[in-house]
Amino acid sequence: MLQDKLNWRYATKKFDAARKVPQDKLDAILKAVQLAPTSSGLQPFEVILVESPELRTQIREAGFDQPQLTEASHLLVFAAWDNYTAERIDAVVDEIVAQRGGGRDAVGPYYERLKGMYLPRTAEENYQHAARQAYIAFGLALTAAAFEGVDATPMEGFDPAKVDEILGLRARGLRAVTLMPIGYRDAEGDWLAGLKKVRKPMNELVRAA
Amino acid sequence: MLQDKLNWRYATKKFDAARKVPQDKLDAILKAVQLAPTSSGLQPFEVILVESPELRTQIREAGFDQPQLTEASHLLVFAAWDNYTAERIDAVVDEIVAQRGGGRDAVGPYYERLKGMYLPRTAEENYQHAARQAYIAFGLALTAAAFEGVDATPMEGFDPAKVDEILGLRARGLRAVTLMPIGYRDAEGDWLAGLKKVRKPMNELVRAA
Repeated sequence: MLQDKLNWRYATKKFDAARKVPQDKLDAILKAVQLAPTSSGLQPFEVILVESPELRTQIREAGFDQPQLTEASHLLVFAAWDNYTAERIDAVVDEIVAQRGGGRDAVGPYYERLKGMYLPRTAEENYQHAARQAYIAFGLALTAAAFEGVDATPMEGFDPAKVDEILGLRARGLRAVTLMPIGYRDAEGDWLAGLKKVRKPMNELVRAA
Repeated sequence: MLQDKLNWRYATKKFDAARKVPQDKLDAILKAVQLAPTSSGLQPFEVILVESPELRTQIREAGFDQPQLTEASHLLVFAAWDNYTAERIDAVVDEIVAQRGGGRDAVGPYYERLKGMYLPRTAEENYQHAARQAYIAFGLALTAAAFEGVDATPMEGFDPAKVDEILGLRARGLRAVTLMPIGYRDAEGDWLAGLKKVRKPMNELVRAA
């Protein structure tokens, strides 16, 4: 079942610009982002849902003019925290305490140790770690889209500094890591739609030790 | 459906050491790794299936003595390429040509441009990029495990240099990025099993622009 969905999906190169993804399907994709596991449950990223056509045109310019960026139904930008801070980690603890009850004693010490480990690190090192967590959510969003019969393009080919500027991300402590246009494939117009999916043989990908 | 599976899973802290994951379920998890999307289809990682009890004991020592590392049914180690090389990229092109046919002209120029972009970069930069791809597959493996009713623990808390040494990864151009013990939860012995899953509210995780 999962395997069928993963076989169905591909990196869509040409979307049908006339077809919109309904809200319930968009919600299901975002729900997978929300449920994605992350290190210590920090969820150190945000997803920016870019609705403005003007902003999407600018992002297309920052994305080597790839047409999916304006032709897809919706555009999601995955943006990771630029650093770990005491405030951000405290906010996670607050959320855990609010949802589970029982005071800070159960989880507080764990997150204090986490601060002791992360806060002395460079912002770049912490950003790289946060970005990896965003990739887990990114993978789950692509999977969720496939379950909804929604096409998507995983995209790293863009100028992150420009996208940060277009969306004002740095001022909010965020850095763009991936783009994900979603919509419906225009199979006849898409050179990749009919090609065989190529993957390494299992015996090259998995080794016993 | 996907949402139910993602709600079911959690970072298992205590496994039932007596229960083994059957081969068909292990295969389904590895199949999701194989089908995971990666940048330019490079699949720049391997999964090491650690079967030797001696190696698992050593990895547990390198993993802050977390018991899942020896008590789970199986242990998967996700290891990313330490660098991009012409040979590795050529091997990907060879595989595409072998599976799709039609000669190198259709894909060769794209991958030559990729070499022009990646090969001048530092090994560290290329490794970080490869590691991000491994995280996509890691997320999909966790999802696939949930679909199979198999518990798993996403683990970053270990000494990567030690795991590299234990498994001889650096000599093979690989670096350990995450560990994933899989098996079946011992719910009564697991402090986390009964606790509410906490996630940020959607309006903090997703923003419109």
